[in-house]
Amino acid sequence: MSATVKSEAQRGPLSEEELRKIHAYWQACNYLAVGMIYLQDNPLLREPLKPEHIKQRLLGHWGTSPGLSFIYIHLNRLIKKQELNMIFIAGPGHGAPGVLAPVYLEGVYGEVYPNKGEDEEGMRRFFKEFSFPGGIGSHCTPETPGSIHEGGELGYSLSHAFGAAFDNPDLIVAAVVGDGEAETGALATAWHSNKFLNPIRDGAVLPVLHLNGYKINNPTLLARISHEELDNLFKGYGWIPYFVEGDDPELMHQAMAATLEQCVAEIQRVQDEARRTGIPSRPRWPMIVLHSPKGWTGPKEVDGHKMEGYWRSHQVPLSGMRDNPAHLKMLEEWMRSYQPEKHFDANGKLIPVLKALAPAGHRRMSANPHANGGLLRKALRLPNFRDYGVQVPKPGQIEVENTPPLGKFLRDTMSRNPDNFRLFGPDETTSNKLNAVYEASKKTWLADYLPEDADGGELAPDGRVMEMLSEHTLEGWLEGYLLTGRHGFFATYEAFVHVIDSMFNQHAKWLDISEDIPWRAPIPSLNFLITSTVWRQDHNGFTHQDPGFLDVVVNKSPTVTRIYLPPDVNTLLSVADHCLKSSNDVNVIVADKQKHLQYLDMDAAIKHCTKGIGIWDWASNDQGTEPDVVMVGCGDMATQEALAATALLREHFQNLKIRFLNVVDLYTLTSASEHPHGLSDRDFDSLFTVDKPIIFNFHGYPWLIHRLAYRRTNHRNLHVRGYKEKGNINTPLELAIENEVDRFSLAIDVINRIPALQVAGAHAKEALRDKQIECRNYAHEYGTDKPEIRNWKWPL
Amino acid sequence: MSATVKSEAQRGPLSEEELRKIHAYWQACNYLAVGMIYLQDNPLLREPLKPEHIKQRLLGHWGTSPGLSFIYIHLNRLIKKQELNMIFIAGPGHGAPGVLAPVYLEGVYGEVYPNKGEDEEGMRRFFKEFSFPGGIGSHCTPETPGSIHEGGELGYSLSHAFGAAFDNPDLIVAAVVGDGEAETGALATAWHSNKFLNPIRDGAVLPVLHLNGYKINNPTLLARISHEELDNLFKGYGWIPYFVEGDDPELMHQAMAATLEQCVAEIQRVQDEARRTGIPSRPRWPMIVLHSPKGWTGPKEVDGHKMEGYWRSHQVPLSGMRDNPAHLKMLEEWMRSYQPEKHFDANGKLIPVLKALAPAGHRRMSANPHANGGLLRKALRLPNFRDYGVQVPKPGQIEVENTPPLGKFLRDTMSRNPDNFRLFGPDETTSNKLNAVYEASKKTWLADYLPEDADGGELAPDGRVMEMLSEHTLEGWLEGYLLTGRHGFFATYEAFVHVIDSMFNQHAKWLDISEDIPWRAPIPSLNFLITSTVWRQDHNGFTHQDPGFLDVVVNKSPTVTRIYLPPDVNTLLSVADHCLKSSNDVNVIVADKQKHLQYLDMDAAIKHCTKGIGIWDWASNDQGTEPDVVMVGCGDMATQEALAATALLREHFQNLKIRFLNVVDLYTLTSASEHPHGLSDRDFDSLFTVDKPIIFNFHGYPWLIHRLAYRRTNHRNLHVRGYKEKGNINTPLELAIENEVDRFSLAIDVINRIPALQVAGAHAKEALRDKQIECRNYAHEYGTDKPEIRNWKWPL
Repeated sequence: MSATVKSEAQRGPLSEEELRKIHAYWQACNYLAVGMIYLQDNPLLREPLKPEHIKQRLLGHWGTSPGLSFIYIHLNRLIKKQELNMIFIAGPGHGAPGVLAPVYLEGVYGEVYPNKGEDEEGMRRFFKEFSFPGGIGSHCTPETPGSIHEGGELGYSLSHAFGAAFDNPDLIVAAVVGDGEAETGALATAWHSNKFLNPIRDGAVLPVLHLNGYKINNPTLLARISHEELDNLFKGYGWIPYFVEGDDPELMHQAMAATLEQCVAEIQRVQDEARRTGIPSRPRWPMIVLHSPKGWTGPKEVDGHKMEGYWRSHQVPLSGMRDNPAHLKMLEEWMRSYQPEKHFDANGKLIPVLKALAPAGHRRMSANPHANGGLLRKALRLPNFRDYGVQVPKPGQIEVENTPPLGKFLRDTMSRNPDNFRLFGPDETTSNKLNAVYEASKKTWLADYLPEDADGGELAPDGRVMEMLSEHTLEGWLEGYLLTGRHGFFATYEAFVHVIDSMFNQHAKWLDISEDIPWRAPIPSLNFLITSTVWRQDHNGFTHQDPGFLDVVVNKSPTVTRIYLPPDVNTLLSVADHCLKSSNDVNVIVADKQKHLQYLDMDAAIKHCTKGIGIWDWASNDQGTEPDVVMVGCGDMATQEALAATALLREHFQNLKIRFLNVVDLYTLTSASEHPHGLSDRDFDSLFTVDKPIIFNFHGYPWLIHRLAYRRTNHRNLHVRGYKEKGNINTPLELAIENEVDRFSLAIDVINRIPALQVAGAHAKEALRDKQIECRNYAHEYGTDKPEIRNWKWPL
Repeated sequence: MSATVKSEAQRGPLSEEELRKIHAYWQACNYLAVGMIYLQDNPLLREPLKPEHIKQRLLGHWGTSPGLSFIYIHLNRLIKKQELNMIFIAGPGHGAPGVLAPVYLEGVYGEVYPNKGEDEEGMRRFFKEFSFPGGIGSHCTPETPGSIHEGGELGYSLSHAFGAAFDNPDLIVAAVVGDGEAETGALATAWHSNKFLNPIRDGAVLPVLHLNGYKINNPTLLARISHEELDNLFKGYGWIPYFVEGDDPELMHQAMAATLEQCVAEIQRVQDEARRTGIPSRPRWPMIVLHSPKGWTGPKEVDGHKMEGYWRSHQVPLSGMRDNPAHLKMLEEWMRSYQPEKHFDANGKLIPVLKALAPAGHRRMSANPHANGGLLRKALRLPNFRDYGVQVPKPGQIEVENTPPLGKFLRDTMSRNPDNFRLFGPDETTSNKLNAVYEASKKTWLADYLPEDADGGELAPDGRVMEMLSEHTLEGWLEGYLLTGRHGFFATYEAFVHVIDSMFNQHAKWLDISEDIPWRAPIPSLNFLITSTVWRQDHNGFTHQDPGFLDVVVNKSPTVTRIYLPPDVNTLLSVADHCLKSSNDVNVIVADKQKHLQYLDMDAAIKHCTKGIGIWDWASNDQGTEPDVVMVGCGDMATQEALAATALLREHFQNLKIRFLNVVDLYTLTSASEHPHGLSDRDFDSLFTVDKPIIFNFHGYPWLIHRLAYRRTNHRNLHVRGYKEKGNINTPLELAIENEVDRFSLAIDVINRIPALQVAGAHAKEALRDKQIECRNYAHEYGTDKPEIRNWKWPL
């Protein structure tokens, strides 16, 4: 294919004049990129470069920049020619100079940041502030107009691109994939996203593998395998690879122009056919391999070392300019080789004949509203979550699986928002008992079908449930979907959400920064349901036990993080409704899928979730007085065991005054000064007392509670129980016993904490221990918990 | 290829008798797998199945099990025939029945667990305890003889396999990759590991993609693309795929036997040639696609639904046996279809003619010492780390980059252990300033070379530095290397070690369990160097700032986790030496690569690291008395700023008595009852006082210190400063100021905490604030910190 394209390219499609202009535009971009990396003054080279024009520290990466600009401006040509609706995703790390340059030249940068406009002073600031303290980042940070993908951590460009393309039939997302980035796991599997893209309903993704051969100090794998292997690889991934290879700018401009035209024509042909026939089969989508030198057009050789086309030009090809006049001269020659005097007018503005090459208005990729997705955000049309609740006439009497009603709520949310909401989960939607959604929409599937799929396959090309066994890809899709203004919900096993810790970190940082950028409109929140929790891994064992994602979440900015642990169906519904209405947050909901006791009717649930924490009067007997002990449950299983402990204590000590608290909103525990949801100290003290023992039964690792509450008055009496890496294949009660969060351990804990019970309680403690042993023995004998445990109810 | 193999297969290579025997052995395996899932009694079906023979809960996965056994016993055939040295890695989740069955039949299970030996009672226990509380896990857990790969979290089978093969020229690692698992990012990029395997020095990996078509409720992607795409994909990844496809056992036995012979012959041919010629070029290694039905040989149809070959047989094909006599009958028929009465003798032991099919002794994959790598562990021949130290005549006077001396220590470690030690890092060894190692050994590279590689490429087919831009693959390789008894060291950027949070979790859990398994010998520790830390991201910005890996680490068992923050070169060397000598731990060392002040000479460093925490007398002026305040530094940058704050305070308040502490071993802060390195309360109190303010300057998120120290006497006076998600592109001091860990903020903090200074300190606070503002303004003007900050020394 490459040979064909190349020979065609040499003939056309660019006229001589077009060729001259596009090359001049590219020179202007490259000039800016070098200027950003090196200069703090003399931006138009009005005088010979002097040491004081050079920044003290040289940062930013030249290597990938010319290639990024090259792609960007060739896309511009096609956008303009065909009035395309396109956005640009830059995968390569530190490639911002190659993106910021065309963004500046098409005028958007100066529109957004008027002090860096299209004049000499604007250019000087633009150069100086790049990769400078307090200035412009070297990735495509949230401050970059037109960016939905920072690229600070590598691997997510392609899945972000697909997320942006879903339900945007008119949009083409150009995704430049760095060949370093291509080695990451997240990227390597994201190529398979083409099995989830529907040519009728969705837009297109046009990946450009930027094969410039080197990472920081290493060749890239994909640049060092045979052409045949590379070709096979992408064909195997289901793409048609088009190769644009070389270093001669003239030939490369022609080849790129021809190849892009061919790819876009192919995309349009495929879409037109699918949309005309209504048959959404999986096409082999086109993708481009752009094989060009690292640091293209930069110095060929420096101090006897190969520079262009080698890893040495990955970052900064020339350095030490302040002490090395030869290098300073080379830099000036290099910059002048781009002929700035021809491309910029006397004021430093791109000359009109080149300005005319860029698209206008919202067609400029840096001004496309899809890349500032909050602008396009439509509120979800939500059904009334109250309609999905369970009847709870008396607390703690019936058992219901907690997630299926949520599944129905999500089902109807999906029906009402047929182009604006998707559910994501790694092959676990049914396992997590949310399968009611399939009544509204099936699982997206554009790969092959077999006859048996008709019986329970739940697959459809127009499905809206996204399932692939890659948390990375799902999270990337969802982020791309949210960043372009749509809504989503991610349900996953608790232990394995850690697979995307780092993706969460990066997205939370993106949101945190975005909150301070006035022109970025808020986007829908990233909503996680963490289920199949640590406590119900009856046969999955130790590897599946890890409630530590919350510990990762609390490290991120309190302006964007929220954590909820609803104990039953109605609280889960209320919380989910709240999360789906919110924006610019990461909401983490922890709720198990198995049967659990139901505590609150819908009105009580709403009230409880609104406060986030509260006394459960029906489980407390300290009414109107100070309690002897405060018992707290946070999380479904933790709440049940804390309640059962309360009941056991009441049996043994009728006069013991126990206050029972339940925590739904984890951040209520921290100070109001630390998090917007934090309780005031006065409110905290009135709930937790200032001097009574608190037994806090927590869903997760116990230390997290200390971390949140260590400044509270009564912290010294706070005794937290939670998961502490004990257990393996266990019944629920047995796992609780191993980690001392079971009813018996908690009740004994209370007795130990109350001086008045030290003597009177000895007999009770013995009885509780005996019972605990009996229960454990039963589990080992019969493989399940005793019926009296399994069927336990709150005693009325 | 598949057609050729198939037609050959129909003719041979198995004689009729061989075919009959191997099929019988497979039937015995399948019988055991079904028995494990269903039965708690009547293991040999001596009487018709009754409801009480069936377990209360049916757990474990049937779907993948017959395929796993099929592969296992065909490998056995070749091991025996050719005396191969092989181990088996089972990637598919919950596939343990398919592995435990042949492990039991070859006698190893009973040797290791005598109460589950080869007789009726042993088999009964073996069945009953599978996936039963307190019993045998449904993954290949550490308790499984012959396993180095649990598979509880998917995606790491192939990288583990490569890690095991490195430096084991005689070993073939058979790695079964589940087709669900194949969708994960970690697995998708691990196929490229073949560019890092040297046919002379290393063993071979024989991947078998177990294409049985389904995950929990979904088809797998690789089963639903065209044969041509699948073939291209693996060719593109650099493998030669051999297809074994079908469901007829007879044909499949012949095809598998033929294909395995061909693959092993190809492996041997490639190795022989490379070893004969001494030319280690990259061959196209063989791999197998085993396309067989999910739940192969199980019920074809249940209640009108397709079962064999569909997702419905992923877990348990038949259920409700206690209430459904028809299902109970089907189960019995299914089990009897394997003809147990023919294969097991009256006592329940496999008949001798079948027993003879398995290899003997250590050739049994379940008894191969490589899979209990601690048995083969040789201590590293370490150079004397003292020889790499820096001279520190006076504390805090000279600046040295902290990591390069470690690089030299690692270089000589590598030289002295030419087949027993490797260094791992994602394209960052030079960036992390460990590049001295290249003097001992280059980067492993079996992909293509270009002429320019000769100038600074540092590539070699026999390199021992492993670099690929996939933290997942590196971590997987390293784990595989350690689990087979060799040593390694992983250096990586701090923010991006989160990419492998979950892999760390799984490995730490493996170690934790292994410590309680008497027959598992301790393996070398997993050593991380976390560098390019949060505090020195001058141009990388916000995305590169995350010191939260430590928060993930502390959630894991204290028996296997260790965290060190050496502040300078000599402490770093002392800590690294300790880590390289340890076993069964995960050691996390945090140390920045940039220039830092040097504090301790080698003797002092060793003493300090041995204690893990201590008073720095030279920086304290409370000698022999109770201090007014305790200042603590933990981490390189944190220590420097805390020292500078101490110096500032001394300038302003000559009589203020400051005790300066430095913490290297983070776990000293926690109670001795919580971690083996925890200080006793008495020791803690004597260092931290019981009532004086403590200003604790920490490298990471500040709450971690509270989490560790919340039970200590003086916790109420503990004020921790650390990273709190503030900053972006900043100079080091500016970033510190943003997060209030800088010298000025700390000094002001101290003044605020000491009542006696409330009035006297007002002027000093103002001066400190002015200076802080001046420093920040300078950074924004010049792009670097003021020289007086950059060149700050401890005042003598």
